[in-house]
Amino acid sequence: MDAVRVGFVGLGIMGKPMAGHLLKAGYPLTVFNRTRSKTDELGSQGARVASTPAEVGANADIVITMVSDSPDVQEVVAGKNGVIEGLAPGGLVIDMSTISPAVERELDRQLRERGCSLVDAPVSGGDVGAKNATLAIMAGGEKADVERATPVFQKLGKTITYCGAVGNGQLTKLCNQILVSINLLAVSEAVLFARANNLDPLTMIQAVQGGAAGSWQLANLGPRVVKRDFAPGFMIDLMQKDLRLVLQAADLTPTCLPAASLVHQLMSAAQAAGQGREGTQGLAKVLEKLSSL
Amino acid sequence: MDAVRVGFVGLGIMGKPMAGHLLKAGYPLTVFNRTRSKTDELGSQGARVASTPAEVGANADIVITMVSDSPDVQEVVAGKNGVIEGLAPGGLVIDMSTISPAVERELDRQLRERGCSLVDAPVSGGDVGAKNATLAIMAGGEKADVERATPVFQKLGKTITYCGAVGNGQLTKLCNQILVSINLLAVSEAVLFARANNLDPLTMIQAVQGGAAGSWQLANLGPRVVKRDFAPGFMIDLMQKDLRLVLQAADLTPTCLPAASLVHQLMSAAQAAGQGREGTQGLAKVLEKLSSL
Repeated sequence: MDAVRVGFVGLGIMGKPMAGHLLKAGYPLTVFNRTRSKTDELGSQGARVASTPAEVGANADIVITMVSDSPDVQEVVAGKNGVIEGLAPGGLVIDMSTISPAVERELDRQLRERGCSLVDAPVSGGDVGAKNATLAIMAGGEKADVERATPVFQKLGKTITYCGAVGNGQLTKLCNQILVSINLLAVSEAVLFARANNLDPLTMIQAVQGGAAGSWQLANLGPRVVKRDFAPGFMIDLMQKDLRLVLQAADLTPTCLPAASLVHQLMSAAQAAGQGREGTQGLAKVLEKLSSL
Repeated sequence: MDAVRVGFVGLGIMGKPMAGHLLKAGYPLTVFNRTRSKTDELGSQGARVASTPAEVGANADIVITMVSDSPDVQEVVAGKNGVIEGLAPGGLVIDMSTISPAVERELDRQLRERGCSLVDAPVSGGDVGAKNATLAIMAGGEKADVERATPVFQKLGKTITYCGAVGNGQLTKLCNQILVSINLLAVSEAVLFARANNLDPLTMIQAVQGGAAGSWQLANLGPRVVKRDFAPGFMIDLMQKDLRLVLQAADLTPTCLPAASLVHQLMSAAQAAGQGREGTQGLAKVLEKLSSL
């Protein structure tokens, strides 16, 4: 049997290095990107460059999508000239974007009408994780489909978790974002409190990081807040998109998430102040503005 | 020169094992506890049992206090028959309780009038840290005083951080509590969201713990929330005392701490529901009550 043919739609800051890993691993690769110039590098390395997502589907057994938001995934998968128009029965779409769980379920339904199916597999680890193939991948879908996707996942990440039905990958990613964003608010408040009381905030971080107060956010973004480094690891605008997904999903059950909601409101203030493209740690500046600092 | 004589006031769940480590290390030890029966074990192991804190002061070069709240420290140090009445000039009080930074500064002032001084050195790590001598110790005071206290600290903890002037140990501990309590709210919301959406919450924790969402609270209290284990590591009533100190200190600068304030309010609801003596992870039940779970 021939090697599994892989397609990749969306060669942004995440998608491009991910697609590169798959090409290097020897998968026959077809790529599409809205801005065509972003396909040049992979094209010169041997990837087939398609003119539409449908053309990607026609040349692949597995198509990965890595785009910005729910409408983008809907368009490239099920819109005009979407992947679904080219994909043969038996094909698998793996959406690795962070989008609405409900949209994933609807796309899976549409794919199943054509004898195809979907795995939702959002990631955490950011552009560094994408470059180093150390992403955490949270996969939802039929178990057999996720098993079929696993060799591909193993070229992209180090932690691969099966989360259950289609949509559960997204729901797990949203739990991740609840934790990340609230932990960051904790860091912002602790550093603010330290500075307002004339503590050395780096000494404070060092004193508490090893114990019950410790977190990835404190260790990694705490020092950036202290040093006024607001360059993006992950942008406020994108976190806001994810928190919107969190709060929309919470409305459906309904679930009371006061701190997630609070972070969303405070990050709205950051956006209003023109900080949308700063790193999430720019949240700290909102609290400073509300305090005597 | 003879060995440094140590006194210990407050043999509760934290103080008793800490005093035990010092006795075992060979320090001549004098102890006091309001409920005298709690001194029996150390007394039988060779500690001198005093009838008042003043008697502890009279028999020690360094007196450690480990009691519940600001008024308790004020009473045992500077109240009637307090340590200050017995301590000779040159004596050092090390308060390892978690109390108001302002009270520490005032006690230091009073001690200095007698030629003595104070180090505030609250700890994190709980009763397990006290038993295993693995506490994190956050020390404020004159540098020479903290250096004098360090050999004693080394018998009690593993991370000893010099935080600056008197009161800065407490302020650092309050930063610790801001982080601990908000991170716990993050865990409560993420587990609630997972359950409301029919995810397996332990799988969710395992999927995200290794990355940017990771925290001590998630790794340690997340599974307890999932398993409905609300036994106290650290009690809600005590966290409320600490958050009260946080918010009082924040009022003075003033500093806006919306999430710390939110946790305090939600834990008030837990106390109203009779959960004050549960572990802090009982916070999760408040959110459940406000949701469809």
